[in-house]
Amino acid sequence: MVGGGQLARMTQQAAVDLDVGLSVLAPSPEEPAVDAGARFVEGAADDPEALRRFADQNDVVTFDHEGVPPEVLAGLEEEGLRFAPPAQAKLFAQDKAVARQRLCEKGFPVPPNLLAGSVEQVAGFGSEHGWPVIAKAPRGGYDGRGVWELASAEEAAPILEGLDGGLLLEPKLELVRELAVITARRRGGETATWPVVETVQRDAMCRELIVPARSDPEVLEEAAALGRSIAEAIGAVGLVAVELFETPDGLFVNELALRPHNSGHFSIEGSDTSQFEQHLRAVLDWPLGSTAPTAPAVVTVNVVGPDDGSDPRDRLEEALGVERAHIHLYGKEARPGRKLGHVTALADTVDEAQGIAMEAVSILEGGA
Amino acid sequence: MVGGGQLARMTQQAAVDLDVGLSVLAPSPEEPAVDAGARFVEGAADDPEALRRFADQNDVVTFDHEGVPPEVLAGLEEEGLRFAPPAQAKLFAQDKAVARQRLCEKGFPVPPNLLAGSVEQVAGFGSEHGWPVIAKAPRGGYDGRGVWELASAEEAAPILEGLDGGLLLEPKLELVRELAVITARRRGGETATWPVVETVQRDAMCRELIVPARSDPEVLEEAAALGRSIAEAIGAVGLVAVELFETPDGLFVNELALRPHNSGHFSIEGSDTSQFEQHLRAVLDWPLGSTAPTAPAVVTVNVVGPDDGSDPRDRLEEALGVERAHIHLYGKEARPGRKLGHVTALADTVDEAQGIAMEAVSILEGGA
Repeated sequence: MVGGGQLARMTQQAAVDLDVGLSVLAPSPEEPAVDAGARFVEGAADDPEALRRFADQNDVVTFDHEGVPPEVLAGLEEEGLRFAPPAQAKLFAQDKAVARQRLCEKGFPVPPNLLAGSVEQVAGFGSEHGWPVIAKAPRGGYDGRGVWELASAEEAAPILEGLDGGLLLEPKLELVRELAVITARRRGGETATWPVVETVQRDAMCRELIVPARSDPEVLEEAAALGRSIAEAIGAVGLVAVELFETPDGLFVNELALRPHNSGHFSIEGSDTSQFEQHLRAVLDWPLGSTAPTAPAVVTVNVVGPDDGSDPRDRLEEALGVERAHIHLYGKEARPGRKLGHVTALADTVDEAQGIAMEAVSILEGGA
Repeated sequence: MVGGGQLARMTQQAAVDLDVGLSVLAPSPEEPAVDAGARFVEGAADDPEALRRFADQNDVVTFDHEGVPPEVLAGLEEEGLRFAPPAQAKLFAQDKAVARQRLCEKGFPVPPNLLAGSVEQVAGFGSEHGWPVIAKAPRGGYDGRGVWELASAEEAAPILEGLDGGLLLEPKLELVRELAVITARRRGGETATWPVVETVQRDAMCRELIVPARSDPEVLEEAAALGRSIAEAIGAVGLVAVELFETPDGLFVNELALRPHNSGHFSIEGSDTSQFEQHLRAVLDWPLGSTAPTAPAVVTVNVVGPDDGSDPRDRLEEALGVERAHIHLYGKEARPGRKLGHVTALADTVDEAQGIAMEAVSILEGGA
């Protein structure tokens, strides 16, 4: 796995049960996955030589982030190396502008958008769709980084100066809620899709997952079908997380991730098969597991570093007093706003599960 | 944790979620727990100096086996070192003869028994209770090793010659079934007990767990109460697994284990809190988690190395095709009769869960 963060850490935990040896390519051994026992291989994700060596040493190479430059990945494939997912599929998660364009061409619903290279283009898009305008760096952003809400075209000027590839613009959509749907796909075409997740964002970061999402049944059905069709259409191998906007005008595809995803953390306890085990099964071309839920309601709440810089680990003992809260810590140094763990609770109702998970997270975050 | 076998391996998996750093003391790094990411510290379990260093390096020292000689453990405690469980409690799992004696003194039901040092004593016990007689080495046996079924007193002669501490005799009881109950206990006295497990033995090795056990409700209640009372009476810290014989004359205590135990493997998926996480909570003196079951029926079947010497790992891909079978492999070299993994299934009925787990195990064991 290229990258050694918390996604690789939880993949390592799943790998142990299947006796799969997981190595991670990372610049330093101070990584959550290495801390959890994954073998450390030193190397940068944008270094073709490191990737070449890593591919030689392993049966399958997959990813815990989108950080391998698409051109590097495509070049290595031309040399005959194989990745799961392949470069042309991974690109849908690496470049938001390309993804919007190609998904639109394939007939999937995407928000109105424009890849703008000038303040004038931003102004034109704002006049057509209204202000504010949401602007995104096509590559490299996550958890709110690389995303701006523009009140006017002038605000785009300094951002455009710092970017090579232009700014991807979209209107600020009226959201009913945000959804995510994860599908696993094997090379041969077998897929398995989890129940649709409602994702709750705060400060542009995913903070909470509610499963099943509280949308109308036909919306859930449409979302699940979209997730599966996109996985098939782009030729994914492994997991595809599709983030969706539910709006009064229907569903729109927001972003894709071709790897385990925050929105799938509920599946560790909340599904017959966790996203981490399923990703391993899919990239190893093994039979996919059941994605059935294990409880009527599952809620996962992220643990984020509090503003006072304190460490949630110091409050773990107290948080363990919350019955039926499943606590997962990522072994990361505490910093304000950093994802440091998550808590999952299973119950008969969303309210009950939410109450349990929130109580534990509130303790871990210091009552913040 | 002293010992690096599969129990330490699964404890390591649980330690990751709580960001607990687990080190294992073992003679070689070729151990299932090290393979899963536990830190390796070289040393033999019977070497006081190694144990001293290990205790210095860690906040708490606990065990994945019963192999530290009781005298060594007691000696180190006299020096001021602390273990979880303490030596006087651990002794109940290390020496079957002492355990029988002391449990009897404390009023717990144990089978009629005698620590015999001569063939004459064996003959006398056989005359009184009938043949065959079950004979056990008081120390060091497991999975059928150190246990003999004697048809006559003469058969005891060669065994007695090879043993220092005599032979612990008991009648061959008429069994309705075998049960096990695991209790976690913190230093201060807080306990948590899992549902009583029915254990099915084949070739003197635990092969299958059925939860809940199919005994009458009052038997289950009595078994759970016994488990809890024994944990309290012996001053355990951490887990206490109590193996019980259910007979037409009531329940008898067979053996104790003061550590995670084969009979608790069901709890990884089948309980709110797994025995491995709970053991960590208990020895670290953290709040204990809920032991409620997660399904009406849970069945765990051990994967044992087949007689033809083949490796279940070679059949993993096929076994993953069994839906809802949770496969756990221990990363151990395949040898006939060796425990190499287990499979757990959750369902509405025991029959259904058994069918799923058995199907996967049958594939892994090569249809044997």
